Amino acid sequence: MIYYLGMLGIIAFSVTGVIAAGKRNMDIFSIILLGVVTALGGGTLRDMILDARPVFWINDLTYLWVAVIAASLTFFSVRLVSRILKLFIYIDTFGMALFTILAMEKALSLGNNYTVSVLMGLITGISGGMLRDILTGRMPLLLGREFYATPALLGASLYALLDSFFPALSNAWL
Amino acid sequence: MIYYLGMLGIIAFSVTGVIAAGKRNMDIFSIILLGVVTALGGGTLRDMILDARPVFWINDLTYLWVAVIAASLTFFSVRLVSRILKLFIYIDTFGMALFTILAMEKALSLGNNYTVSVLMGLITGISGGMLRDILTGRMPLLLGREFYATPALLGASLYALLDSFFPALSNAWL
Amino acid sequence: MIYYLGMLGIIAFSVTGVIAAGKRNMDIFSIILLGVVTALGGGTLRDMILDARPVFWINDLTYLWVAVIAASLTFFSVRLVSRILKLFIYIDTFGMALFTILAMEKALSLGNNYTVSVLMGLITGISGGMLRDILTGRMPLLLGREFYATPALLGASLYALLDSFFPALSNAWL
Repeated sequence: MIYYLGMLGIIAFSVTGVIAAGKRNMDIFSIILLGVVTALGGGTLRDMILDARPVFWINDLTYLWVAVIAASLTFFSVRLVSRILKLFIYIDTFGMALFTILAMEKALSLGNNYTVSVLMGLITGISGGMLRDILTGRMPLLLGREFYATPALLGASLYALLDSFFPALSNAWL
Repeated sequence: MIYYLGMLGIIAFSVTGVIAAGKRNMDIFSIILLGVVTALGGGTLRDMILDARPVFWINDLTYLWVAVIAASLTFFSVRLVSRILKLFIYIDTFGMALFTILAMEKALSLGNNYTVSVLMGLITGISGGMLRDILTGRMPLLLGREFYATPALLGASLYALLDSFFPALSNAWL
Repeated sequence: MIYYLGMLGIIAFSVTGVIAAGKRNMDIFSIILLGVVTALGGGTLRDMILDARPVFWINDLTYLWVAVIAASLTFFSVRLVSRILKLFIYIDTFGMALFTILAMEKALSLGNNYTVSVLMGLITGISGGMLRDILTGRMPLLLGREFYATPALLGASLYALLDSFFPALSNAWL
C-alpha cells in the first residue's frame, strides 16, 4: 500500500514539473528531466540526510521509469487541459501530502524519533516542488500562497500522534 | 564553549530567515520553517559532504528546538525592530563567521587537512544564507555586497594558521 | 586519461563561474569561490547521491587547486576576451559533456546499472551550471536554450550502448 502511495506522489510531482515548464523554449528531454528531478528530488534529499542507502530510486528503478512515463504523458497531453494553474496547485498539494507522510514513515522506520520525522516529512514534502520552482524561475509556492506549511505540519503532527497512540492502526493501512 | 557558539549561530541564522520572509503572504509555520531551514541548512550540507553521520540536528534535538524558538520569538517581535536591513546584515555576518569557524573545527576533527577544512568552512558559513535568499527570491548576499567571502576567507585562514602553530590555544578556547 | 578529462571539465566550469559573475559588485574571493563551487558542485552532488566516499575533491586536493587557479586566471583575463556570451555557452556545453560521461563512468564503476548511470550523468553534467545560474540570478540555461538536455542524453545513451557492446573499447580510451 505504502509503495503505491509513493508511486502516486511520484506521478503527481512529475506532472507538476512538466506543467511548470509551460510554454518555455525547452526541448522535450529537458522538460522530462525537469519532471523527473521534481519527482525524485525530495526523496533523494531525504535519503541523503537520513543516510538511507542506496537512495530509493537507485534501489528500485520503477520510481525512475514511473516519473519518466508520467512526465512524457503529461508533455503530450498538457495542451488539452484547461484551468492548468488550479489543477497545478491541487496536484502539488496532493503530492506534498503524500510525500510528507511517506517520509515520516521512512524516518520512523529508520529509528528516528517523532520530532526528527516530522521535520523530515516537511522537508521532503516541500523540497521537490521548491527545486522545480527555483529551476523554472517561478516564485516558490512556499512564498506565494497562504497556508502552505501549515496543513503539512498539521497532517504530520496528526500522523505522529496517531502512530504513537495506535501503532497497529498506521501499520494496518500502510 | 564550541557547543554554545553553535547555538548562537543557529539563533542568528534563524532570526535572519524570519526577517527575510518580511511582509510576504506567508503563514506563520512557513515562516518558522524558513527560519529553521536557514539555521540548519549550512550544517546539514557540511555533514552530508563530510559524511559525518548522523547529521548534527538528528543527533541532538536541541539545535532544532533552539531554531524553532528563535524563529517564533523573532516572528512575534520583528515588527518592533526598526532599521531591520542593517541589523539583518550584521546578524547574517555574525552567524556566517561563527559557522565558518565551527565547520572548520568539525572538518579538522574528522581528520581532514587545512585546505579542505577552509573550503568546508566557507561553504557552511555561506550556504544557509544562500538557501534563505534563494527561497525568498532575494538577490543572494554573495552578489549584492562588496567583501562577502573575503572576511570569511581571512578568518578561516587565520584560524588554520593559529591552529597549526598553536594547537593548544585553539583547544583552550573551544 | 579519464583523470585529465576530469580536470578539463573542472577548468571549464570554473571559468564559466567567473564569467557569470560578470560586472557585479563582488570582491575577488567571492568570484573565485563562485568558480570553485560551479566546478566542484556537480561532482559533489554525484558523490553524495551515490554514497561514493570521501567526496572526490576531499580525496584528491588537485581538483580544488585546479579550480582555484582556473578561476583566478579567468578573473584577471576575462576583460581581454570579447564575445564572452558565445564563448560562455561553448565552454559550458563542453564541461557538461565531459562531466556527463565521467559521472556515468563513476556510477558504472560503483556497480550501478545503465539506467541509473545515465540519469546520474545528466544530473552531474547539469547541476554545477544550475547552481552557478541560481547563485548569480541568471535564467538557468536549462530553460533558456533549445536543445539542452537532448545532446547530453544522446551522448550518455550512446556511451551506454558502446560500453555494453564494446566494454574493452571504453576501457581503452579512458
